[in-house]
Amino acid sequence: MSIGLPPQKSGGTLDFYFDFISPYGYFGSLCVEDFASDHGLDVEWRPMLLGISVLKVMKLPPLPERPLMGRYHLEHAIPRHARLHGIHIARNLAAPPPNPIAAARAFCLVKRDAPQATVSFARAVLHAHWAEGTDVVSDPQELAAIAARLGAPADAVAAARDDPDAAALLRSEVDASIARGVFGSPTFIVDNEPFFGVESLPTLDLWLKRRRETGDG
Amino acid sequence: MSIGLPPQKSGGTLDFYFDFISPYGYFGSLCVEDFASDHGLDVEWRPMLLGISVLKVMKLPPLPERPLMGRYHLEHAIPRHARLHGIHIARNLAAPPPNPIAAARAFCLVKRDAPQATVSFARAVLHAHWAEGTDVVSDPQELAAIAARLGAPADAVAAARDDPDAAALLRSEVDASIARGVFGSPTFIVDNEPFFGVESLPTLDLWLKRRRETGDG
Repeated sequence: MSIGLPPQKSGGTLDFYFDFISPYGYFGSLCVEDFASDHGLDVEWRPMLLGISVLKVMKLPPLPERPLMGRYHLEHAIPRHARLHGIHIARNLAAPPPNPIAAARAFCLVKRDAPQATVSFARAVLHAHWAEGTDVVSDPQELAAIAARLGAPADAVAAARDDPDAAALLRSEVDASIARGVFGSPTFIVDNEPFFGVESLPTLDLWLKRRRETGDG
Repeated sequence: MSIGLPPQKSGGTLDFYFDFISPYGYFGSLCVEDFASDHGLDVEWRPMLLGISVLKVMKLPPLPERPLMGRYHLEHAIPRHARLHGIHIARNLAAPPPNPIAAARAFCLVKRDAPQATVSFARAVLHAHWAEGTDVVSDPQELAAIAARLGAPADAVAAARDDPDAAALLRSEVDASIARGVFGSPTFIVDNEPFFGVESLPTLDLWLKRRRETGDG
């Protein structure tokens, strides 16, 4: 154990886009901070809305309803990733997920009003949703209880789902995500270079190493 | 340089599904043999038809026409993969590809009648299509020239596009690929466990290592 300065980060920012109800977004959330830290990057956690926004732009049905691809992800790739990385998932992947709007709006408020709690709030909500299997993402009282535990404004979080300010904050983030071409959860962006999917992290790793070696970017 | 027995392979078979006109299939073809060899696996090269068959089942437009996702792959992920791995691509990724039926049927004939030339034939066709940018996949004479160079039956290859036997062989492979849930190129399958995409190879690597450690499978 060493006592010293916090790790130096000067390599820029990694934008981490995730949807609370995306299993791959959850997987990404569990490793993105360590990954970024290894590369000297700060992480900016950013909400996106897969089912509510992106799939409408892409004219795609939700993953479970897609022929061939749905079965691949639900029966193979998602449980396999969880197993290989020791991640417990308490949810039925084939069941329709709860609406994540309340969680995403609450997240935007926490990020604005209690930025030091941003990451711990997102992680606690993701953990409750995925590892405990509760419908926290659509439950203002559960969201508020998490906020209170973390020193974030619980009353504002409890009201976030129906708060026009929170709605505008989230809308602005989601519009920006689409403008940046984000179509899936998770998406990692460094210096406007997007990497989609948790399996793209080795590619991002190689891209960052190559950039350091060549001084490019 | 060592003289000795060929590398021992006893770990089973890796089914490698690819479409000649898929850039990621090309990327997979360049590394699948080394990857499999590292794990003691033999590679079974298998054709699939992305645009002609799978996308119909999935009711999806071709990649370049998909909102957000098309741009991600064409402008970021594909050229980036090529750059990071030192792969030259001579084709315009946004242009409609030639019909790969002639190449896929020829491949089936080569695999049946000159199995020792299977991999070199596939690689030569892929190289001509991607690295040289020719429309070899739809050109029976070009395909026959490649076959002749590799000691495979050139006349049969020249006639493959319109040969009912070759058509039946390919149809059987393609039907089997769909029955196995293959929806993208490349797909790697080991013991019925499918891994989609060239970026899934690190996951397959981890899966194979874990299987060896635990004796599972």
